[in-house]
Amino acid sequence: MNNIRLLIEYDGTGYHGWQKQIGYNTIQEELQKAIFEVTKEKVEVVGCSRTDAGVHAKGYVCNFISNSKIPANRYREALNTKLPNDIVVLESDLVDEKFHSRYNAKGKTYCYRIYNNFVPTALNSRYTYHYKGLLNIQAMQEAASYFIGIHDFKAFRSSGSSAKTTVRTISELTIIKNDSLIEVFITGDGFLYNMVRIIVGTLLLVGRNKIEPCYIKDIILSKDRAKAGKCVSGKGLILQEVYY
Amino acid sequence: MNNIRLLIEYDGTGYHGWQKQIGYNTIQEELQKAIFEVTKEKVEVVGCSRTDAGVHAKGYVCNFISNSKIPANRYREALNTKLPNDIVVLESDLVDEKFHSRYNAKGKTYCYRIYNNFVPTALNSRYTYHYKGLLNIQAMQEAASYFIGIHDFKAFRSSGSSAKTTVRTISELTIIKNDSLIEVFITGDGFLYNMVRIIVGTLLLVGRNKIEPCYIKDIILSKDRAKAGKCVSGKGLILQEVYY
Repeated sequence: MNNIRLLIEYDGTGYHGWQKQIGYNTIQEELQKAIFEVTKEKVEVVGCSRTDAGVHAKGYVCNFISNSKIPANRYREALNTKLPNDIVVLESDLVDEKFHSRYNAKGKTYCYRIYNNFVPTALNSRYTYHYKGLLNIQAMQEAASYFIGIHDFKAFRSSGSSAKTTVRTISELTIIKNDSLIEVFITGDGFLYNMVRIIVGTLLLVGRNKIEPCYIKDIILSKDRAKAGKCVSGKGLILQEVYY
Repeated sequence: MNNIRLLIEYDGTGYHGWQKQIGYNTIQEELQKAIFEVTKEKVEVVGCSRTDAGVHAKGYVCNFISNSKIPANRYREALNTKLPNDIVVLESDLVDEKFHSRYNAKGKTYCYRIYNNFVPTALNSRYTYHYKGLLNIQAMQEAASYFIGIHDFKAFRSSGSSAKTTVRTISELTIIKNDSLIEVFITGDGFLYNMVRIIVGTLLLVGRNKIEPCYIKDIILSKDRAKAGKCVSGKGLILQEVYY
């Protein structure tokens, strides 16, 4: 029995997220189908997180148990010949039998991309959220600093979350603007359901001068979802890296 | 009667190029449908060039004659509400009644993007051609210099071209490598059918050390299509800018 770890990249546009759901295209199912074609085994691939419909990944980690004799490092090429073009295996290797992609994850970095121009973009529309108004980037950067640390992020999660605790640690939140592209990098030990997208929606309220940067502290303390911003589109979100 | 110029950006993945063809999705047809929705006029949009299936554009220029009273600068927003997400009007303005997007074009810049990594990419696969082998960039850059100038590019066009002369001037050919991305920028007064893609295919022969950089001179002089490299995939090609 081998425990195989895969590092994968995917364009989530055509998928209903990671997790297998009857009647929907999902990343997990595509991988399981490709593994079946290679090994003839029906495996359950464990993913590092449920990503939502339309969300992308540059460094998603998953693992599965196999009885096949295929060397672990051969899975990359073998699976890439079976997978659709929008899912790519970047690495495949043998890991300790106890390794679990989700339970062992110590943290993650996400990137949220905003295309901030009066006119939309055709070439980046799959990977960016279009916001056409003026944004006060400096205010957004100040607001970002109030998210850093250990907080109860109850105000920043959508309903339907089953997490036992809503306390999370955010260690980094950086906003970088290059021409029309604004990238929000956020690193934490874990994220609640839709938390990154609601944080970005709230940063946009600051950027539009609808709320003061320091009001972020009040929203956090309120634990009231209604006080935070909207959950922005999943297509701007990319899972960058998972830490173990 | 107004002559309206549009500057457009598009992701060509889902289209059979610019030119209207019965039974196929084309950029020209999408634009004409959108103009009809806005003005109720059936216009013929003149494009700066026929782009092939799958080719993209950041700065495609086209124009059409309208009797509508809509101010020229209003077309941008009006058309963007009607067009699919993968076609965007960046600018719309009133031009001289004699302006013709194709006949008046003095030159164009194309960019060809190669994703040069052993492992393919999921997030850039729509906009890059994947080449997994090692490439000698320095040799490719030397080879590029032999294309500059006024030459008969008969060896670098696909059959089916109706151009009267095969002499063209290339004023710039630059190759830039950033991590796994190689961008080939090529500027000329005009390009024969598939010329950019065959030039890139030939540069790849140089990069793979299959031919010497100075052999480019011989290929040009031979006027023999069989001596040049293959016509690489259209999905790596982007029309960057048109000059008037």
